Amino acid sequence: MNSNAIFKSDIEIALSSEMKNIKEIAEAIGIGEDGIELYGNYKAKLSFEMLEKLKIKKDGKLILVTSINPTKAGEGKSTVTVGLGDALNKIGKKAMIAMREPSLGPVMGLKGGATGGGYSQVLPMDEINLHFTGDIHAITTANNALAAMIDNHLQQGNELSIDPRKITWKRVLDMNDRALRQVVVGLGGPSNGIPREDGFDITVASEIMAILCLAEDIADLKVRLARMVIAYDYQQKPVTVGDLGAEGALTLLLRDAVKPNLVQTIEHTPALIHGGPFANIAHGCNSVIATKAALKLADYVVTESGFGADLGAEKFLHIKTRSAGIKPEAVVIVATIRALKMHGGLHKEELVKEDLAALQNGFENLRKHIETINEFGLPFVVALNRFSADSSLEIALFEKLCNEEGIPFALTEVWEKGGNGGIGLAEKLLEEIANNTKTFQTLYSLSDPVEQKIMTVAQKVYGASNVEFSSEAKKQLLQFEKEGWSQLPVCMAKTQYSLSDDPSKLGRPEDFTIKVRSLKPSIGAGFIVVLTGDIMTMPGLPKKPAAMNMDVDDSGKAIGLF
Amino acid sequence: MNSNAIFKSDIEIALSSEMKNIKEIAEAIGIGEDGIELYGNYKAKLSFEMLEKLKIKKDGKLILVTSINPTKAGEGKSTVTVGLGDALNKIGKKAMIAMREPSLGPVMGLKGGATGGGYSQVLPMDEINLHFTGDIHAITTANNALAAMIDNHLQQGNELSIDPRKITWKRVLDMNDRALRQVVVGLGGPSNGIPREDGFDITVASEIMAILCLAEDIADLKVRLARMVIAYDYQQKPVTVGDLGAEGALTLLLRDAVKPNLVQTIEHTPALIHGGPFANIAHGCNSVIATKAALKLADYVVTESGFGADLGAEKFLHIKTRSAGIKPEAVVIVATIRALKMHGGLHKEELVKEDLAALQNGFENLRKHIETINEFGLPFVVALNRFSADSSLEIALFEKLCNEEGIPFALTEVWEKGGNGGIGLAEKLLEEIANNTKTFQTLYSLSDPVEQKIMTVAQKVYGASNVEFSSEAKKQLLQFEKEGWSQLPVCMAKTQYSLSDDPSKLGRPEDFTIKVRSLKPSIGAGFIVVLTGDIMTMPGLPKKPAAMNMDVDDSGKAIGLF
Repeated sequence: MNSNAIFKSDIEIALSSEMKNIKEIAEAIGIGEDGIELYGNYKAKLSFEMLEKLKIKKDGKLILVTSINPTKAGEGKSTVTVGLGDALNKIGKKAMIAMREPSLGPVMGLKGGATGGGYSQVLPMDEINLHFTGDIHAITTANNALAAMIDNHLQQGNELSIDPRKITWKRVLDMNDRALRQVVVGLGGPSNGIPREDGFDITVASEIMAILCLAEDIADLKVRLARMVIAYDYQQKPVTVGDLGAEGALTLLLRDAVKPNLVQTIEHTPALIHGGPFANIAHGCNSVIATKAALKLADYVVTESGFGADLGAEKFLHIKTRSAGIKPEAVVIVATIRALKMHGGLHKEELVKEDLAALQNGFENLRKHIETINEFGLPFVVALNRFSADSSLEIALFEKLCNEEGIPFALTEVWEKGGNGGIGLAEKLLEEIANNTKTFQTLYSLSDPVEQKIMTVAQKVYGASNVEFSSEAKKQLLQFEKEGWSQLPVCMAKTQYSLSDDPSKLGRPEDFTIKVRSLKPSIGAGFIVVLTGDIMTMPGLPKKPAAMNMDVDDSGKAIGLF
Repeated sequence: MNSNAIFKSDIEIALSSEMKNIKEIAEAIGIGEDGIELYGNYKAKLSFEMLEKLKIKKDGKLILVTSINPTKAGEGKSTVTVGLGDALNKIGKKAMIAMREPSLGPVMGLKGGATGGGYSQVLPMDEINLHFTGDIHAITTANNALAAMIDNHLQQGNELSIDPRKITWKRVLDMNDRALRQVVVGLGGPSNGIPREDGFDITVASEIMAILCLAEDIADLKVRLARMVIAYDYQQKPVTVGDLGAEGALTLLLRDAVKPNLVQTIEHTPALIHGGPFANIAHGCNSVIATKAALKLADYVVTESGFGADLGAEKFLHIKTRSAGIKPEAVVIVATIRALKMHGGLHKEELVKEDLAALQNGFENLRKHIETINEFGLPFVVALNRFSADSSLEIALFEKLCNEEGIPFALTEVWEKGGNGGIGLAEKLLEEIANNTKTFQTLYSLSDPVEQKIMTVAQKVYGASNVEFSSEAKKQLLQFEKEGWSQLPVCMAKTQYSLSDDPSKLGRPEDFTIKVRSLKPSIGAGFIVVLTGDIMTMPGLPKKPAAMNMDVDDSGKAIGLF
């Protein structure tokens, strides 16, 4: 039950938890000191040799954690992911966790990280939320080295005839910095380059992050980097990293970032934390390399995808499973009474009071996601993540709504109790896996026309009645067809707050149209990004950034991180 | 003797050298596993506890390596630094090396790193030249988090009344990217911030890098960060990081970066590689924390300063010694026949041919630096770093010129022979230290007026006849006086290629005037930057960037790094 009134803060709990040396954690999953590269005593990367050796082992079972559409009330998807991993170990299963690594920008901006909460956290939480093992810095560097090489190419004669108005590659920083969203670069005369409009995204929005998370190994990484489209030339032909000859340098810069990071939960469950692409303009899942390594190292691997099931899970199931040749055995859908009440019409300030009508209304959002997971042919359990303000009548109503329709569910108290708070969920999940008779299926085929892929996701996953394409999007569809990109899966960039493309439509909106503004080829990652509504790829800081509370004492101990 | 014709490349030598586990290297200088934080098997940071424990030990002797004015022919100052450290160990002294860490921008741009060359390198050279232990990434992040907080302050009401036209804090990237030198940020409407002119420097030009290298510990780091001037308000009063309340977050971001990095040379001499500020707009020396730690751990510490003696050594002796309360026992001035011939009038293409007249002319550049080191009251040895194209007549002339005036010198062949090639230099140096009767003195007093400090450096160190101040600089002198900044040492930003402020005047120019364009307060670092001529704080990439040759094989091995 999340409450700051009586419990310690996440950072207090994290810093007062005893960690084991990471060598011990590695040993417990059969990895000796020669298979890891240490980053201090509590973080390590798996070596290329170890990753290679693992390939002959058989795979464990993959469990995907997703949620209802996120609200400002918070769902605790990462917390449930960690708690479920701990719970599986508690009941005697060999379990691991595979999660995304946090982006520093939002950490400095808003209170909250991506390392779980309460007694279901991965450690060392302060380091993971700050620089960790430098993966995101390496991506920032590779992204911006490429940008510098593109502008340098223009400056040095522009052999490739790049149209400076049509450079699609943007610079990035792992920072919430709205002033960099739209900039003009190259000012100050001929020695400073060619003036042109440009912009910065946050690093996790870089296609390089998506590629790092989909690559099978370093050779595949290089091939994907070379494929990235960075601009168009004066004849409208795409210009790639390979045309520029920069893929070797970029791969070298990412050489260590591509290795998964091993850490532990408070209860010493091993966790691979690696990669973290946006779940709107990218696919929102941790790396394929980490997920596959975890599957070789454990019997059960708990992983999560970004945002709600309409974005994260849909992309996990259509993009990551296809690219990696893996599939989950079951899905956990996280919901909270608070968030469901918001979907049912309450404001954040009203959530403390009991409201059964709002809960019943908001339940419709959960129901849609359940229908979607059923469409994919996957067994699932709904995890109700308990908060201290949930009333017993509200919980009873939630249970009644589930029981009436035979929806498998479990209450979890992993924030307060760690793995012990997730044992019910773990047992229910194993039961659903054991009794499963369904077969996993994707909802569209790669050979479907791009419009149809988009229509399928909009109708079957969002519940939309129609899709409208802007004239720009229509032009792009023709162009992409000509370039031979139509066989790629689609990666929908949509608001995470609503099933529709309007963030104010909570609950389960009906009779709505998805408006496709434009498309973006992520050819290295291997998908076509479909932009609907306004998608923010560089966040801003709030009036009082979380950074203002941060400090460190003279001995180096983090203060006020969360 | 440097020659690519018959010898292996630096990266080939580096990758074929057997490293010891860094735990062994630490053990050899009395540091157990609990005193270091491992970054893989060959890099480690010294822990805060270890740094604290060292304080009671007595100090070794410090040797400063500097050089003539650098030319495109190359002097090999870092190579001599490494080779001298190895040589001292070879002759039975307990020696360590304390060097700067390389900036990635130039590594991607031009062939060459800052880790020495041939058989006098620090290892793992590929990792040190790429992301190393993430120190520079942490500085980039802290610098840009501050920039985002400043623009966010404007956006959220501008309580401090910051004048957006007078924000002096710039963003940085560790990249050679000319297109970012002058930009306009905040475009695209009210939600994207306030449009204003801005620019990016390379990270090593950030005041945060200078501060990291002058801070005594984490508490001092925080105090210095708080002092940094970031803008002026509408009343022309300086606005600091402390006014913004951001020093805690910045210190937290730098918490690990402030710990020195332990690595080893090819011959297993321990080396602390830490910090690397520009030697023009900053002071160009590795960190005080690392230098002081090395002095506690070894009897002899070989360190280097940036560019030639007119910039690096002058700043080492006026800024770093004062701030840290240390002083060198002796100086090594590195010269090469090639570079002296360039100072004597030859073009780079003409260097292969014997030219005694050019050598004799160019010797004047060396002579000026010798005079300067004499002014400081320090014993020295000139190290002639041999190259394969040096003729025996040229070397004989060099020896004659030195012998005529009693200039102590030694030939070194550390590139080809490692420590064995530097034994003569090491022995000569110990002799000069043993026989020294001079006393170290600074050339100006902190209580001198700022104009006089500048005049002293210009006349005594550069050999200038006069200093001219622009009207802007004159206005700033008055303002700085009013702000109480006049007691600070000056940090001259001047071209490294010439003793004058004109990069084309090689050798020993005479009757020249130093033109002071403007001043910049680096109050956190604790100096006033004096800008002369055009100082580049964001380099560009060449026509064919070194990055184009870089690659990595499928097993992760670096290719074509140098």
